[in-house]
Amino acid sequence: MSEHIVTSYEDELKNIVRRISEMGGQAERMVEQSVLALTRSDWALAQSVVADDLLLDAAQRDLDERAILTIAKRQPMAVDLREIVGAIRISNDLERIGDLAKNIAKRVIAVHDHSQPVQLVRGLEHLSDLALEQLKEVLDAYGARDEMRAMAVRENDEEIDAMYTSIFRELLTYMMEDPRNITACTHLLFTAKNIERIGDHATNIAETIYYIKTGEQMEAERPKGDRTTSMMQPGSNLPPAGLEG
Amino acid sequence: MSEHIVTSYEDELKNIVRRISEMGGQAERMVEQSVLALTRSDWALAQSVVADDLLLDAAQRDLDERAILTIAKRQPMAVDLREIVGAIRISNDLERIGDLAKNIAKRVIAVHDHSQPVQLVRGLEHLSDLALEQLKEVLDAYGARDEMRAMAVRENDEEIDAMYTSIFRELLTYMMEDPRNITACTHLLFTAKNIERIGDHATNIAETIYYIKTGEQMEAERPKGDRTTSMMQPGSNLPPAGLEG
Repeated sequence: MSEHIVTSYEDELKNIVRRISEMGGQAERMVEQSVLALTRSDWALAQSVVADDLLLDAAQRDLDERAILTIAKRQPMAVDLREIVGAIRISNDLERIGDLAKNIAKRVIAVHDHSQPVQLVRGLEHLSDLALEQLKEVLDAYGARDEMRAMAVRENDEEIDAMYTSIFRELLTYMMEDPRNITACTHLLFTAKNIERIGDHATNIAETIYYIKTGEQMEAERPKGDRTTSMMQPGSNLPPAGLEG
Repeated sequence: MSEHIVTSYEDELKNIVRRISEMGGQAERMVEQSVLALTRSDWALAQSVVADDLLLDAAQRDLDERAILTIAKRQPMAVDLREIVGAIRISNDLERIGDLAKNIAKRVIAVHDHSQPVQLVRGLEHLSDLALEQLKEVLDAYGARDEMRAMAVRENDEEIDAMYTSIFRELLTYMMEDPRNITACTHLLFTAKNIERIGDHATNIAETIYYIKTGEQMEAERPKGDRTTSMMQPGSNLPPAGLEG
């Protein structure tokens, strides 16, 4: 293989990796701003998040196309192939994170004009702080190709799941206390679920980093997350603590 | 290019297309069974859907790998490349449909033991019938590479969105009538949302078929669907008709 081809393959790869890091920054910003828009009832900010999602979608399609052309042109093998396949997967997760941020932003009008109790808003903010921390950490792990850091991100997802479960229960309690809270709380429930799923995508990215480095899939899915699906409420108004299903 | 290579490229492509159709059948079955499990409180059926999702995930990873190796080995161009890129995208949507069916199945224990009013169950069944019809139609359109049929699928997604909005409102009303309904209805809300998203993935597949056939993205996103995010309820207990956001 000539020096020329090697160099330009490396350029293509660098370009792809740089785009992933740009998409990562954009996804982080969208998550941050969507929650801010929600807690401040900032409709203009929400609209800018919705608009940003179109850009992120376009960036993902573009990266997809470049990555596949690179595979067709360069026929990379082993770790080089995994780098590019990994980039395709990560850009897919980042695009989905953007979608979730957009979904959060779109609920701003629905919860606007409803007074939200301070502790619920705090809870959502805390949940999104955790999700953002995970996202930042996994993007750093990607930059450093550090699979141990990536594995730690996967472990930490449990904390998001536990907090989501607690917010879910709190929202239900609040709805039961006063039916006038039901509409707003329903939208906050969906918002909390969206944030919890952002954490899941950070976990996916962690698994992709592990795959790039080792060529292996991480072993069996860790015990999963959303315990609210196994909550029962036999004969009572309040859901008991989440039970493992 | 020798006859041998052409033939074996075609074999690889045929194999990939056959796998997509198998995955499509599996995704359909999972959606069907998850809703059945929910409406009949059939815990064993729900568990089998959760187990099936692991198989669908594995099928998708396998297809991904084959498709990318085919691109690297064969360097297909134009419509041939789009066929394979399209297969990767469609298998991704099918895998996500499987995830959504799994999410529905996981709520069986949460809504079990709660008497669900007949009209709500009927509503969910009807919604999932629509989503399944869309999924079947788009898989047929893929088999026939019929982009006009695919475009019709995209148009029909509106019907699912409208029915989802109506179920959303019905569930909220039911929760407001009696706080004891809140826990079960919340899980049914998430279920309805999952079914609505299955429709969105059928739409994505329709767009991919269009891309395979024409090499173009379908023009701008059609006016989107979930009107519940722009519902307001100023000073009233009942949500008004969905307003466009």
